[in-house]
Amino acid sequence: MFPVCQIIASKSYTDCISPVLDTRSLTFDPDTTHNFLRLMEGNRKAHHGGGWLLSGIICINILILGCALVSGSAFNSVAITAVHRQIFLIILLLLTMLWMLFYTVITSRKDQAVLFKDSHAGPVWLQAGLVLFGLLSFLMDIFKIANYVGYLHCDSAVKVAFPVVQAVFLFVQTYFLWTHAKDCVQLHTNFTRCGLTLTLSTNLVVWMAAVTEESVHQTEIYNLNINMSQKFYRASYGDKKCKCSHSACDTFEEAFYYLYPFNIEYSLFASAMAYVMWKNVGRIVEDHSHHKVKFRPREVCLGPVTGILLVMAGLATFILYEVQILKEDREKTNAALLIHFSVNIVIVSLMSLSTVIGCIVYRLDHREHVSEKNPTRSLDVGLLVGASMGQFLISYFTIVAVVATGARGYLNALNLTWAVLVVLQLGLQNYFIIEGLHREPFHVIQEAALHTNAHALQENTELSAVVDSRRSVYFLASCPDKLSWKRRVLKEVCVFLLFANVILWIMPAFGARPQFDHSIEIYFYQYTMWTAIVNIGLPFGIFYRMHSVASLFEVHLTT
Amino acid sequence: MFPVCQIIASKSYTDCISPVLDTRSLTFDPDTTHNFLRLMEGNRKAHHGGGWLLSGIICINILILGCALVSGSAFNSVAITAVHRQIFLIILLLLTMLWMLFYTVITSRKDQAVLFKDSHAGPVWLQAGLVLFGLLSFLMDIFKIANYVGYLHCDSAVKVAFPVVQAVFLFVQTYFLWTHAKDCVQLHTNFTRCGLTLTLSTNLVVWMAAVTEESVHQTEIYNLNINMSQKFYRASYGDKKCKCSHSACDTFEEAFYYLYPFNIEYSLFASAMAYVMWKNVGRIVEDHSHHKVKFRPREVCLGPVTGILLVMAGLATFILYEVQILKEDREKTNAALLIHFSVNIVIVSLMSLSTVIGCIVYRLDHREHVSEKNPTRSLDVGLLVGASMGQFLISYFTIVAVVATGARGYLNALNLTWAVLVVLQLGLQNYFIIEGLHREPFHVIQEAALHTNAHALQENTELSAVVDSRRSVYFLASCPDKLSWKRRVLKEVCVFLLFANVILWIMPAFGARPQFDHSIEIYFYQYTMWTAIVNIGLPFGIFYRMHSVASLFEVHLTT
Repeated sequence: MFPVCQIIASKSYTDCISPVLDTRSLTFDPDTTHNFLRLMEGNRKAHHGGGWLLSGIICINILILGCALVSGSAFNSVAITAVHRQIFLIILLLLTMLWMLFYTVITSRKDQAVLFKDSHAGPVWLQAGLVLFGLLSFLMDIFKIANYVGYLHCDSAVKVAFPVVQAVFLFVQTYFLWTHAKDCVQLHTNFTRCGLTLTLSTNLVVWMAAVTEESVHQTEIYNLNINMSQKFYRASYGDKKCKCSHSACDTFEEAFYYLYPFNIEYSLFASAMAYVMWKNVGRIVEDHSHHKVKFRPREVCLGPVTGILLVMAGLATFILYEVQILKEDREKTNAALLIHFSVNIVIVSLMSLSTVIGCIVYRLDHREHVSEKNPTRSLDVGLLVGASMGQFLISYFTIVAVVATGARGYLNALNLTWAVLVVLQLGLQNYFIIEGLHREPFHVIQEAALHTNAHALQENTELSAVVDSRRSVYFLASCPDKLSWKRRVLKEVCVFLLFANVILWIMPAFGARPQFDHSIEIYFYQYTMWTAIVNIGLPFGIFYRMHSVASLFEVHLTT
Repeated sequence: MFPVCQIIASKSYTDCISPVLDTRSLTFDPDTTHNFLRLMEGNRKAHHGGGWLLSGIICINILILGCALVSGSAFNSVAITAVHRQIFLIILLLLTMLWMLFYTVITSRKDQAVLFKDSHAGPVWLQAGLVLFGLLSFLMDIFKIANYVGYLHCDSAVKVAFPVVQAVFLFVQTYFLWTHAKDCVQLHTNFTRCGLTLTLSTNLVVWMAAVTEESVHQTEIYNLNINMSQKFYRASYGDKKCKCSHSACDTFEEAFYYLYPFNIEYSLFASAMAYVMWKNVGRIVEDHSHHKVKFRPREVCLGPVTGILLVMAGLATFILYEVQILKEDREKTNAALLIHFSVNIVIVSLMSLSTVIGCIVYRLDHREHVSEKNPTRSLDVGLLVGASMGQFLISYFTIVAVVATGARGYLNALNLTWAVLVVLQLGLQNYFIIEGLHREPFHVIQEAALHTNAHALQENTELSAVVDSRRSVYFLASCPDKLSWKRRVLKEVCVFLLFANVILWIMPAFGARPQFDHSIEIYFYQYTMWTAIVNIGLPFGIFYRMHSVASLFEVHLTT
């Protein structure tokens, strides 16, 4: 009885419930009525007590202060050094850990704290990604500690303390998000909201700091390599009085800078999960029985086969590319870029083509759209579109640079083609995925068709006024085991796109940076600006590919 | 009968209707049923046909391409010149005007195009601001044309064409937004959505271009003034072969750069209105009778009096400041800054103090929160919080700069105090306004109290379990003409804050730029970066102050 009462009590104060609950069939007894009133009061406060407002204000303040500190330390390394920034980050990390400890030990142990779990929050790919990138970030911190210990006699101890705190934080946060990502917290809601925005903003500040640090480092390396300015070289490296006390320093430094992108990705993952948790605080999730849709790999054939072939080809050329780029020979680099660009163009063209086919089938397919509101889906779509901005940004900047300089040569032409095709592919894929997520899942239609009687069927046909749909419902009801050609095509497209996104994820995630191996954009935007664009855009692009894979899998299941 | 049917037909396909309509009392006849079905079909397509998705994709693409072009022209003035950027802008402006013409002449003339108007969209302050800033932008374009005509013999004609097109655009857009800002379009929804995002992104690209142009110009002037680098001077000015053919060129150029901030503000206003219109496409607004709340200025006294005094004092010192700054004497400048900082600190402290009082009264006041969802209000709150970021940004960057350099002297101390107080004031004011907008309007409570019977009242008291509220309801019901002290305090605070926001709007809007008259931030962040921050943040800050005034007026009316 109790949970039901609670749902009703909170109904008018939370805007998250999709279906209107039928209250007429319920009776109250005095005991539960008391609880009902208490909870009603509590819930009202939860929703309107300004907790979300306060948490928002905290988030904005930490973020903008972090932004000012990080850019201050990047543009003016005299007054604000890395040490100041790291002290600020250590404070943030400690506060966040304290709150996580409080939540794990006190809030989540209470009886009424977590009555509902959002089954869509913290999906498996996000969790797995978090652990993977968390481990690599941990490795980065170990290398950092080993490196900066060598400078302890002449540099600040904060440089060792920060990676130590961060390493602990990685464990605490990964554990916290692993166990609590699905919680819809109902107790201490105000405090939990503030804690979650603290987590969110801490991760975003860590992200900003990592992006800035990597960009500054890359710019320094670049300036060193081309030996552009002898004066600059002396200023940034030659004047360094502090020498490392052990011999492995250089190796460690190279290693941890190589691992930076994983730490950036980790922060983005954790931010996304903290944001979803924040949205879920105080939310009442209807416990819908979540149809177990069986994944039948045999249903499709062409999609997986071509997809896997694509992944193999991509992997082979990727390894070739990485090997040839390392040789630092102009001719070899150009050959590597030629292969890389060509393969990417082929992949992206095939993807665009199959997405177009999928979109046409959607037009022909008269499946109903889901009419009920679903906050998790809206959030998912928002994250997908938001993350795609990163790749959009890089591609458009490339297009402008190549077109504006009127650059000739096959490499520039390939680069331009690739950028244009990526823009096209991103737009199409976003449309395809969002459209797919908004269609009524097939098994729901099927069940409706099986349980319906002739009268209802006729009514339904009249309502939708589409002759074709009636035919397909009949068809589905009579032979549920065989796929209609439309569903089959959609499933093939989904699986193919899924594999293609996997290979497009692997290449940048494991170190392909044609953006820096090709000089046209560097020449056009100056190195500093181009590094900033790539370092901001690329992690979002990687996140986008992983997110697409998960969404395409969902679309595949419901089609 | 017809419009009612239509509302029901669209009900399940639009998520914008707040109250659930009672359908049981309605009967259908065959004729309307046909229309009902047709409309249902149409509306489903409208909502799910991908129009909003397509319009979003268009918006992202134009924005990012614009971003790439604008930053390309700022960082690399060789390959992409102002002319390329202006050609792109001319195309955008022409396309937007074409769509606006189509909408005004065809869509809006149709019978079923605009069945509903959103009474909250395009409020009077936004309309008035649009016209005011539109006129000043028009003046800017006139000056631009007059200036660039003088260079026609040796410079591109595009530089004249762009302000001409922009001037026409200003008229078309202002007329369009003036007459159609409240429309909830029901016809050609997909096309209208795309048109509105085109309008939105055009305005944002114009905004980006204006901000960049102004920043580059300010940096050039700065470098000229301090004569920092003789080489740079020659590169940017000395090499200019093109001489103006008439003598008034310099005057015109100075004049139109002075008017740039108004054009930036105009673009922001138009963007906000286009965004609200886009959100309203296909929306069904319930025609609620919109209680006419009478504005009774006699109810309050202390707030307006102190507020007007503050405005007078602010105006006097602002004029003094402007006069003294123009003299370009170090000592006079410092004296002017001293006055300006002190007055601002006094204003902001008084505001914070009164907001704290207001927040305490809210805590004591047990007025119900509005439970129904209201998209217009959510949008309003979003715009308010979003716009406040601009001022937050500037203040935090100032705080970091002053603290990090450990700058001494009374001017730095005042600057720091001001920045800290502004952050505090913004947080408090956001909280106060949002809390005020979410409270049940007083007249609604009053009516409920008057029409209620003893039983219902008792029930209500039991439910909310607050003894105080019963007393206040009795009080309100018995003497509705006299204000309770709580309402009176809240009203006084609202009016005071309103006037204080007016003076804080006037000062930056009409040219106070202490950010550039004081050197600490320029020294810390370098001139280029600081100009960018101020030119992005300040227009949002100005927008925020105007928006606050409007919101405070609304809170005042409903309290």
